Amino acid sequence: MSRIINVAAAQLGPIERSHSRCEVVERLLAHLREAHAMGCQLVVFPELALTTFFPRWYAEDIAEMDAFYERQMPGPETQILFDTAKKLGIGFYLGYAELAHEAGRVHRYNTAILVGQNGEIVGKYRKVHLPGHAAHEPWRAFQHLEKYYFEPGERFDVWRAFGGVLGMALCNDRRWPETYRVMGLQGAEMILLGYNTPVHNPPAPEHDDLSMFHNHLVMQAGAYQNGTWVVGVAKAGNEAGCEMIGGTCIIAPSGEIVAACSTKGDELAIARCDLSLCDSYKNTTFNFERHRRPEAYGLITERRGAVLPAPLAA
Amino acid sequence: MSRIINVAAAQLGPIERSHSRCEVVERLLAHLREAHAMGCQLVVFPELALTTFFPRWYAEDIAEMDAFYERQMPGPETQILFDTAKKLGIGFYLGYAELAHEAGRVHRYNTAILVGQNGEIVGKYRKVHLPGHAAHEPWRAFQHLEKYYFEPGERFDVWRAFGGVLGMALCNDRRWPETYRVMGLQGAEMILLGYNTPVHNPPAPEHDDLSMFHNHLVMQAGAYQNGTWVVGVAKAGNEAGCEMIGGTCIIAPSGEIVAACSTKGDELAIARCDLSLCDSYKNTTFNFERHRRPEAYGLITERRGAVLPAPLAA
Repeated sequence: MSRIINVAAAQLGPIERSHSRCEVVERLLAHLREAHAMGCQLVVFPELALTTFFPRWYAEDIAEMDAFYERQMPGPETQILFDTAKKLGIGFYLGYAELAHEAGRVHRYNTAILVGQNGEIVGKYRKVHLPGHAAHEPWRAFQHLEKYYFEPGERFDVWRAFGGVLGMALCNDRRWPETYRVMGLQGAEMILLGYNTPVHNPPAPEHDDLSMFHNHLVMQAGAYQNGTWVVGVAKAGNEAGCEMIGGTCIIAPSGEIVAACSTKGDELAIARCDLSLCDSYKNTTFNFERHRRPEAYGLITERRGAVLPAPLAA
Repeated sequence: MSRIINVAAAQLGPIERSHSRCEVVERLLAHLREAHAMGCQLVVFPELALTTFFPRWYAEDIAEMDAFYERQMPGPETQILFDTAKKLGIGFYLGYAELAHEAGRVHRYNTAILVGQNGEIVGKYRKVHLPGHAAHEPWRAFQHLEKYYFEPGERFDVWRAFGGVLGMALCNDRRWPETYRVMGLQGAEMILLGYNTPVHNPPAPEHDDLSMFHNHLVMQAGAYQNGTWVVGVAKAGNEAGCEMIGGTCIIAPSGEIVAACSTKGDELAIARCDLSLCDSYKNTTFNFERHRRPEAYGLITERRGAVLPAPLAA
């Protein structure tokens, strides 16, 4: 039996600081309707898809940025996304900043949810690999204060949905092979992944012209090495003066890019994703049970940073 | 201080079953001399570089294949490689089948050694990820009996040599991100990797036309994600009727291929490898201490095979 999901990777162009949630939600609804008209069952939006990428600004009082966070999901402005999903029978992945009251205090996360074709939330993911820095660095033209504005999530999960096993990740997670592997070890057949990636990385500007190559390289390798689809979706273009890469694409379990956006604005890339294409990778070269050697992988979980061998005697 | 190693990736064309060790060693010596003439300090040979890829044939008595294994390294036919290395001041990585007497019995490994510019062995690596199968599968035109002819190695190490931190791997190891990561966590700045890869993979022939893409994809991702050089070297061409990929290349810590072979025969690809190029990756995006999240990676070492989530209730 073939198991096909028609997926739309729903890239967004810039969202300015002044844009209201309702304005942004209108753009998401346009993507949902267009994707539905093209026969899709699942739409993948970017990371922090409801607002501008606010971690580029420092606020001494972190609560000054709370207007960028969602206190409920669905909330008053986002309910219509769920209602439309249900009406059209089309699910979605959505990244947003989450403000949660748990265990007696406020928590802030960089979050994504997966919503089914019935408009119900299937699962929630909180970003594990927060990039950037935790303290204000005034020398940067733009901050990347994710370690300041968010607490990290603690786990990568997968969910049975859309006839397959789906996982979620966010932005910087995609650079870490552990991200894909932890989900691959739970049988992931499709990993959904939104991102906001500035072209310019202030600590290492010498790599700026490779940002698109690196974006694709890590997602293609993650797909192939786990025999899974990967759907990577950008918020792209010049947002508040900060240039962000596009490069939205849908990657097959072969590692091949099978659909891609070519602009830096609101754009859909669509692919008919056959989950059964995962099988020939998962059952042969990447049959984990047969070929993995966890007894040789101890350092991956024992050690966070690199520890070099002792220097040679002089 | 720049730390530069001039490296030659020394691809070999086919070695037939009838070729003697001395004939093969002559080809390796030609590579050593040519690389030395071009100012190299390190030559990287393929996996099983002294013989044909004998695991493509089944022998009911495994000892029938013992002529393909080395009992000593250096041995009578290989001593000249070490002598030449010392004389020219050029080190090498060499893959070979190893027959060892340890703990009172015979062991067989798929092994690589690193030899320094003084002709002394710096380190030895025994292949961790043995691909293929352990039982004769007569339906295959060519066997891939590495799980039959070899015991697996148990660890990935690195060594201080050539002014840097060097690691070794072999063939199928390159497809597994854990390979690079375990060495990256020990500070690897250059990973040396020989391979023998048939174009045709009998269990999944539908991927055959992607074999070169996959070859490069995994090595480029491993380099970038660990901020390390990777030197991947093929035994290539039609060996005993079995077509093997070439694709020998030297990959920078950026993930870019900076030197490559273009034939399937004996050929050198040469690059001036500046180990200090690793630093801007290891200190920024891939600053492991700052950004890795081992607390979320538990499954990588706890689990060998994939375990899927429970099916949805009907």
